Amino acid sequence: MTEIYPLPDKEAYRRKYPMPDLDTDIITLAHGSGGLMMHELLEKAVLRVLSNPWLETRHDGAVLSPDGPVAFTTDSFVVSPVFFPGGDIGELAINGTVNDIAVTGGIPAWLSLAFILEEGLPVKDFWEILLSVKYAADRAGVHIVTGDTKVVDKGKGDKIFITTSGTGPLHPRAHIGLSRIKPGDKVIVSNRIGTHGIAILSVREGLAFDSPIRSDTTPLHRLTRALLDRLGPDVKLMRDPTRGGLAGVMNEIAKTTGRTVELEEERIPVAPEVRAACEMLGLDPLYSANEGVLAAVVAPGTEEEAVRQLRQFPEGRHAAVIGEITEGDDGVVVLRNALGGKRVIMMPVGEQLPRIC
Amino acid sequence: MTEIYPLPDKEAYRRKYPMPDLDTDIITLAHGSGGLMMHELLEKAVLRVLSNPWLETRHDGAVLSPDGPVAFTTDSFVVSPVFFPGGDIGELAINGTVNDIAVTGGIPAWLSLAFILEEGLPVKDFWEILLSVKYAADRAGVHIVTGDTKVVDKGKGDKIFITTSGTGPLHPRAHIGLSRIKPGDKVIVSNRIGTHGIAILSVREGLAFDSPIRSDTTPLHRLTRALLDRLGPDVKLMRDPTRGGLAGVMNEIAKTTGRTVELEEERIPVAPEVRAACEMLGLDPLYSANEGVLAAVVAPGTEEEAVRQLRQFPEGRHAAVIGEITEGDDGVVVLRNALGGKRVIMMPVGEQLPRIC
Repeated sequence: MTEIYPLPDKEAYRRKYPMPDLDTDIITLAHGSGGLMMHELLEKAVLRVLSNPWLETRHDGAVLSPDGPVAFTTDSFVVSPVFFPGGDIGELAINGTVNDIAVTGGIPAWLSLAFILEEGLPVKDFWEILLSVKYAADRAGVHIVTGDTKVVDKGKGDKIFITTSGTGPLHPRAHIGLSRIKPGDKVIVSNRIGTHGIAILSVREGLAFDSPIRSDTTPLHRLTRALLDRLGPDVKLMRDPTRGGLAGVMNEIAKTTGRTVELEEERIPVAPEVRAACEMLGLDPLYSANEGVLAAVVAPGTEEEAVRQLRQFPEGRHAAVIGEITEGDDGVVVLRNALGGKRVIMMPVGEQLPRIC
Repeated sequence: MTEIYPLPDKEAYRRKYPMPDLDTDIITLAHGSGGLMMHELLEKAVLRVLSNPWLETRHDGAVLSPDGPVAFTTDSFVVSPVFFPGGDIGELAINGTVNDIAVTGGIPAWLSLAFILEEGLPVKDFWEILLSVKYAADRAGVHIVTGDTKVVDKGKGDKIFITTSGTGPLHPRAHIGLSRIKPGDKVIVSNRIGTHGIAILSVREGLAFDSPIRSDTTPLHRLTRALLDRLGPDVKLMRDPTRGGLAGVMNEIAKTTGRTVELEEERIPVAPEVRAACEMLGLDPLYSANEGVLAAVVAPGTEEEAVRQLRQFPEGRHAAVIGEITEGDDGVVVLRNALGGKRVIMMPVGEQLPRIC
């Protein structure tokens, strides 16, 4: 006999979940920013209604266990413009999902690919993006195994949106989780920060720099795999600080653990041209999006080995230890400068720049 | 030592894959229609570049085998309007992916959920859609384990687009594939056809019928499971005829197998109000989208038992045997009427109606 599932009445859901008060009646760009307003939308609405043990981990991906642990992630890409210095939306969509799987502790294997095309998109643009998808998939060693294509009327989309989901087996030595972070743990990054956000801004605003700033979009799976191969459970957390930048991810760690995250300003790698552009534009690279940076928290004593592992690879050659988790119980992120001065790095509220990825 | 992947040069991809000639320089709504133009875009561009054994199956989902067979599918939902008689985009997005997993022979288990919201979307509309997501997920017994939220500027999207991906273990008795279809196999459907398309059309065009036509959106996982439990490998193929309708799916079977699919007009279930609306509007229910219909091909002699299994469930109470695969080798679909007259059912070219799902 086939199991009969109960068919719940949707009205009961309206009663069970009263509509949250979000201090706004409409969705704004800040709700997609990676900052406080997005956090509130997710916590008060989406995650409250959909609550389950997988979503409770508050990670970029889920760990499933059908016949063995499996990572599962998804991301929509709406970057504007779709072609930018150093990449395009196709490459970004593959790398982004590869990276979400990788930082979840998975080994990226299978991807899905869903296009929402705007009527009028030049076929040659679609073709170029498709080649980037293939290029990035081959580079990361993943298979695109299923997909979907929708077209919306002109003016109801913006050239092309791509949603990729991905899955792959969990690395056997992965034991990742915010709850494993302890005072004394070290914070490392694999690359110079803030580059993607400034690359998008420069092309969008038509800014010309002496040397063009190219997006850092790159797959991070070699880096995460090297860390897990070598350090195993000494890797406490890995993240891909895209929207909201490094400041967003560090604040998430501080808030969730209740500890202080102390970063040392002069150890945080920033490309000179990105630093110059930020100074000119009044922006902070800590809040600028990254598409090729791994941020990790590792056990004390393993940080130098972690950095050595990352530096084996071109995409990890700027790896550095940038701070640590301290005994502080205020749940904030503090930046210490070379003179010993300290300032609090707040959670971003909105976004420096919408539609960065 | 960590494996070093080759980093291919994208220029080589441009040389390896010359741009296909699609007889058009721009993407049109027909490229998202489920008809011939979409078929051409997929075959000449997407599937040619991304070609691999999973995509070669030309199914709605992929079957992976990490530690056991797993189904993996994805779909973007761009239906307009987002609320329609009988459902909304949230329910459709969950049911649609549950159904894609189910017809792949999987047992729907884990879903991802990615929102692309248009700036200005009323929070109350988002909330109502979110409740529908939860309702539909509970109804189908699936967990939403990971997600993403993006917001695009007003006028660069259309209220809300949702992309869901899903995964779940393969039913142990599933052995599904176009290549397993043989002459003599029977074609069955689980429900009256064409309802969703006409429901969307009626609300979009402001048509008033005596009795409102409600979308048939429903999860099909109980039906596919009952068929596989009972018939196992005698179930040769299962499909969810959404865009392009039953005519699209039947043509795909005919083209791929090279056989004739012969359908009997008076055995195909159509709701009287849908038939009346189609006659009034000059539409054909065979080409109208379905969101709660399972079409299956089963081994000869098992069709009556298949129909009995489906009729156990409210969502399968109109199940019927509607035709068979014949020895013909012309790869076409033929509709036979009560008088013995025959007409060829062509593959849809564009779409009766864009943005149906």
